[in-house]
Amino acid sequence: MKRKAQRRGEFDLIAKYFAPLARGESGALGLTDDAAHLLPAAGHDFIMTTDALVEGVHFLPGDPPAAIAQKALRVNISDLAAKGAKPRAYLLTAILPSSIDNDWLATFASGLKQDQKRFGLTLIGGDTVSTRGPLTLSITAIGEVACGRMVKRSGAQAGDDVWVSGSIGDAGLGLIQSTAQRHSLPPAHSRYLISRYQVPEPRLSLGMALVGLAHACIDVSDGLVADMGHICTASGVSMFINSADVPLSRAAAAAVASGKVSIETLLTSGDDYELVFTAPQSARSRLAVIAAKLRVKIARIGRAGDGEGVSVLDGEGKPRHFDRRGFTHF
Amino acid sequence: MKRKAQRRGEFDLIAKYFAPLARGESGALGLTDDAAHLLPAAGHDFIMTTDALVEGVHFLPGDPPAAIAQKALRVNISDLAAKGAKPRAYLLTAILPSSIDNDWLATFASGLKQDQKRFGLTLIGGDTVSTRGPLTLSITAIGEVACGRMVKRSGAQAGDDVWVSGSIGDAGLGLIQSTAQRHSLPPAHSRYLISRYQVPEPRLSLGMALVGLAHACIDVSDGLVADMGHICTASGVSMFINSADVPLSRAAAAAVASGKVSIETLLTSGDDYELVFTAPQSARSRLAVIAAKLRVKIARIGRAGDGEGVSVLDGEGKPRHFDRRGFTHF
Repeated sequence: MKRKAQRRGEFDLIAKYFAPLARGESGALGLTDDAAHLLPAAGHDFIMTTDALVEGVHFLPGDPPAAIAQKALRVNISDLAAKGAKPRAYLLTAILPSSIDNDWLATFASGLKQDQKRFGLTLIGGDTVSTRGPLTLSITAIGEVACGRMVKRSGAQAGDDVWVSGSIGDAGLGLIQSTAQRHSLPPAHSRYLISRYQVPEPRLSLGMALVGLAHACIDVSDGLVADMGHICTASGVSMFINSADVPLSRAAAAAVASGKVSIETLLTSGDDYELVFTAPQSARSRLAVIAAKLRVKIARIGRAGDGEGVSVLDGEGKPRHFDRRGFTHF
Repeated sequence: MKRKAQRRGEFDLIAKYFAPLARGESGALGLTDDAAHLLPAAGHDFIMTTDALVEGVHFLPGDPPAAIAQKALRVNISDLAAKGAKPRAYLLTAILPSSIDNDWLATFASGLKQDQKRFGLTLIGGDTVSTRGPLTLSITAIGEVACGRMVKRSGAQAGDDVWVSGSIGDAGLGLIQSTAQRHSLPPAHSRYLISRYQVPEPRLSLGMALVGLAHACIDVSDGLVADMGHICTASGVSMFINSADVPLSRAAAAAVASGKVSIETLLTSGDDYELVFTAPQSARSRLAVIAAKLRVKIARIGRAGDGEGVSVLDGEGKPRHFDRRGFTHF
């Protein structure tokens, strides 16, 4: 870990809070060197991704430090999941305003520790720097997948089913419920939606099981329709989805039924970190077995075809018109 | 490259400015996927490091964008150099305030492009996010070294010579010369020192040549004495340096001779990105051949011994006393 002595006691805080997170990967050298050394497991590629979170953009001031740590790690693990990769290691750059104290860091590190254990990866390097701006966390995550087997965005084929895991739109509603613009929803629903925003659930076991089965995959970070559009662009296909088939949580379904939230909002909200993937129709029974075995809900929401762009159909198969800006771009 | 549509036109700017930087590494997939896949060359380890720069801390507002790009990349390349690694790829997280416009980004990308060509590495991923804080750049760099041959901090042995490349203290003086606290130095000297601060020169060819020869190595980022201290701690040795043997540039030497700058300032300034390394005395002649072949100056400035800590000796071999805070910590 590169250590710049800009913060008083920074060497100590790395040793105290971060070095213990490097146990279990010998090439991390306990964060005592300039760099780590790492080899992929035999017959595997490294899969590498990076994602940053900024306070006030990706999380809210006052969010619990352990939840911030877990969101920072999980949005990266979600990218690995979408590629079918097993997490191995990560590097963390913590860009810290002066308001961050040792208690905050201790709780932040405990969140990392918990998720390292759960998702099977180890801190191998990082940097801590001071800023007069907002708290910002940048993570580079490294996973492994059998050589040449990474699930790409570009493999979708006309005729493929389009599937999505879990439920869609919860995180977007959770963000709204975290602000003064919140809707009047049942408190238990609100709490659930906020938890989905604060600490996403990367669909790691599902993603790893899709290697060799899914033709294309992406995680929902920009919004379901937008992210389906990314697959369409990369694969040179079109897609339609039946909006009635998009899986909603009980909380989101109730919000829609009450008229307070539109389906448009749910389909264009980001931060769900569910997986959207395409697979040949011949894979349906195998996918059902996998979903049951892993206890992950998956729903078939549409199909890929020739052409380009994403169409959203209503319950009667008619195209829905979306006003939300950005939609027409996909 | 993970793309969050928080900035209007961000997809376009990634395609326009960053995607061209991903050519040459097929696993980068043109930055069109969630992640890149990468394998080390046969018989090589990956060496991974991350370093972030914050405006107002590591570079100054108004520094040229190409120079900022190059500094961000080079401080990471310098870490690879210290480990003997050949650069291969990097991931870039650009945390951008709203003041950053397309012209700025174009020039920034041109700086990256120039250094990619010079140092032989390729952009394979990244993230761009908005901030209301200062411009911040976080890079994870990936290099390669023959399996098990990474030059560590921990290999120094009592009796080793201590060597340093180039000249020490220039970047620290360059920072002073960039501010209102500047000394009255000849303009040409000032310009030289500022350039050393703005765009460091990673000692890559030297670092790669030290594999199998140096016992320990680190790059000078915290300051010569502090970074020697890091080797001492990791290796369990002490070191002394003869301050009269520490190589100074003409500009720094003139500043010391004029009485405006103390040798203490030079030995405790950061950001030089020279290499400090230890090697057995038997390696002297081979090191001389390498330095001559690579046209890199190296100077033998001291020796490692038993015990702990760094001592700085004056021209008569007497310990110097440093007032500067932090020194006693090493």
